[in-house]
Amino acid sequence: MALVLSNEDIVKLLPMDVAIRALEPSYCDLSRGEALSPARLDLLTPLPEKEKCVYEFKSMPAVYPRKKVAVWRVNSDFLTWRNRAGNVRREKEPRAPGDRYVGLVLLFSMETGELTAVFPDGEMQRIRVGAANGIAAKHLARPDASTVGLLGSGFQAGAQLLAMCAVRPIRRVRVFSPNAEHRQSFVREWTAKLGIPVESVTSGREAIAGADIAIASTNSAQPVFDSAWMRPGMFLTSIRPFEFDRATLDRCDVLVIHSRESEPQSYVAGGDRSVVPELAGGGAKAKGGVIDWGEQKDLGELLLGQAPTRTSSEQVTCFVNNIGLSLQFAACGAAALERAREQGLGRELPGEWFTEDVHP
Amino acid sequence: MALVLSNEDIVKLLPMDVAIRALEPSYCDLSRGEALSPARLDLLTPLPEKEKCVYEFKSMPAVYPRKKVAVWRVNSDFLTWRNRAGNVRREKEPRAPGDRYVGLVLLFSMETGELTAVFPDGEMQRIRVGAANGIAAKHLARPDASTVGLLGSGFQAGAQLLAMCAVRPIRRVRVFSPNAEHRQSFVREWTAKLGIPVESVTSGREAIAGADIAIASTNSAQPVFDSAWMRPGMFLTSIRPFEFDRATLDRCDVLVIHSRESEPQSYVAGGDRSVVPELAGGGAKAKGGVIDWGEQKDLGELLLGQAPTRTSSEQVTCFVNNIGLSLQFAACGAAALERAREQGLGRELPGEWFTEDVHP
Repeated sequence: MALVLSNEDIVKLLPMDVAIRALEPSYCDLSRGEALSPARLDLLTPLPEKEKCVYEFKSMPAVYPRKKVAVWRVNSDFLTWRNRAGNVRREKEPRAPGDRYVGLVLLFSMETGELTAVFPDGEMQRIRVGAANGIAAKHLARPDASTVGLLGSGFQAGAQLLAMCAVRPIRRVRVFSPNAEHRQSFVREWTAKLGIPVESVTSGREAIAGADIAIASTNSAQPVFDSAWMRPGMFLTSIRPFEFDRATLDRCDVLVIHSRESEPQSYVAGGDRSVVPELAGGGAKAKGGVIDWGEQKDLGELLLGQAPTRTSSEQVTCFVNNIGLSLQFAACGAAALERAREQGLGRELPGEWFTEDVHP
Repeated sequence: MALVLSNEDIVKLLPMDVAIRALEPSYCDLSRGEALSPARLDLLTPLPEKEKCVYEFKSMPAVYPRKKVAVWRVNSDFLTWRNRAGNVRREKEPRAPGDRYVGLVLLFSMETGELTAVFPDGEMQRIRVGAANGIAAKHLARPDASTVGLLGSGFQAGAQLLAMCAVRPIRRVRVFSPNAEHRQSFVREWTAKLGIPVESVTSGREAIAGADIAIASTNSAQPVFDSAWMRPGMFLTSIRPFEFDRATLDRCDVLVIHSRESEPQSYVAGGDRSVVPELAGGGAKAKGGVIDWGEQKDLGELLLGQAPTRTSSEQVTCFVNNIGLSLQFAACGAAALERAREQGLGRELPGEWFTEDVHP
């Protein structure tokens, strides 16, 4: 039997504390080589009829033996690069009927081989990012960290707040993002959801001033944080590889990244890599060149005690979620599926549709 | 809307001539870099509770812009290695309910991004192997080739006969395989299906004697063909990399292989590659070491006129289907889906289940 779950189901099934508990052991297994999460494979095809639009087929398989689950996450996207307020931004065009996007997670059982679940990737995408940064905060932020400065009010920002509240006694949040309207609506939504004051401020500096935890949660390809804002005892965290500049990273006492596996394998139909701005000129490493991720300690090593951690309340610690891992979908997916079965959530499809008696 | 198709549907939708026509242009596109078909990714996990059983998650994505289709083929298998009559054989254990296997093909639209079809891979697996060898025969066998010698009577052998009959005026087939019972039942089935004499013989030598086309279609890891059986004008073809020995390949006037992309990327959970006999000692190249596939001409080059081809009726030509390509599932899948829509075949699932309004 295969379960079809919706984004709404995933939100119900994976509250942040559940996601954090589900995810944490997967990093240890990955570090020990007991789980597999190879680099993402991106197949890019420039579409001839529409300028600067590229079809991207992103494939991320993983296996998580601890939970006996294999996973495949796929994105079937149309990318454009648009000039927004002087910055070139990568955007996805929703081309499925009803202006919808296509990202899916498929789970398979390592006990029977069967397809066990299919669901859209969107909500799990932000939950897993939040949970990863939450796990880092649990190990790197001061135990008494209670104030948060947040840069960004977009899709990922709320999950970051949920994650910090799950691991630290957060009493106050200050948020800055360039669009005042977005910011105000974010503040209303999250004040209600968290039950603590979430305040809007008009600069990044104000957001970070007095914060124990400084979060960058933007889709910026340029640094959004000024190293002059750093204060002793802070925990810094970001969801993309280029939100902190070199000066900030250099001044941190402890730096941990999500994964050293930082380069997706990319293939471009037709061979002209210049159609993808991120690939032109050598790929992610060239896109900022902040530091060499391959030389940093990762989250698994931190959890296994194989990386330096906070040893005083004065140190500045930092976690950069530099790239996602397919294994996160396996660990979060396994937890969601287990709970969906307990709660009877989802639509059941007959297992025979997705199995066969033919031995190829 | 996503269509769920069955193996039975695929057989109806993809007669051999349709598969050959669907597949042929995909090799040209691949050679020109206009389609993408990266190496297979194998994630292998030894299962602790059962000795010599390994869970294998095989992932094969591809994009085929000509037909605006992206594909993912997955196998979620349990492998064992058993000693059968002195030979170690790799076998799959059917562990899904009802003793079933799990191999799936998923198609996505490069116009809307949507999941358009899901079906088991079994029947398409053998149709695409047959069709590839059929395309090679169409270009490398003598135009008047009319007799076939077949080594093997298993799952793939019938598709090989269908393919040869689709491209050459075949009048007679002689088949040998070690198990007389299998052979007899194969002979009955295919005499009826093809409407030409299919005869059983008791040795490989007898099967090949007088054959214009010699087919190796076995699951042997050792050579099954003796170079002494070669005759002027023959076309030799095999479905695996090690059915012909070095002496045979060296004596061919023209040799074409399926793809130079011959090494899957393999990762083993726990890191002990010796649990997979094929990986122990360096992988596929070590497993016979017949010739260096990376130095041969491939099917795409043959079709584009970039490889030597038959120039006289006396030459011996050879095609080795050394490894499969994910692109074959895209090309065959696109043809099957087009015909399924025309014929109203398959079960329709709502497209909204597999799309989302969340922009991650």
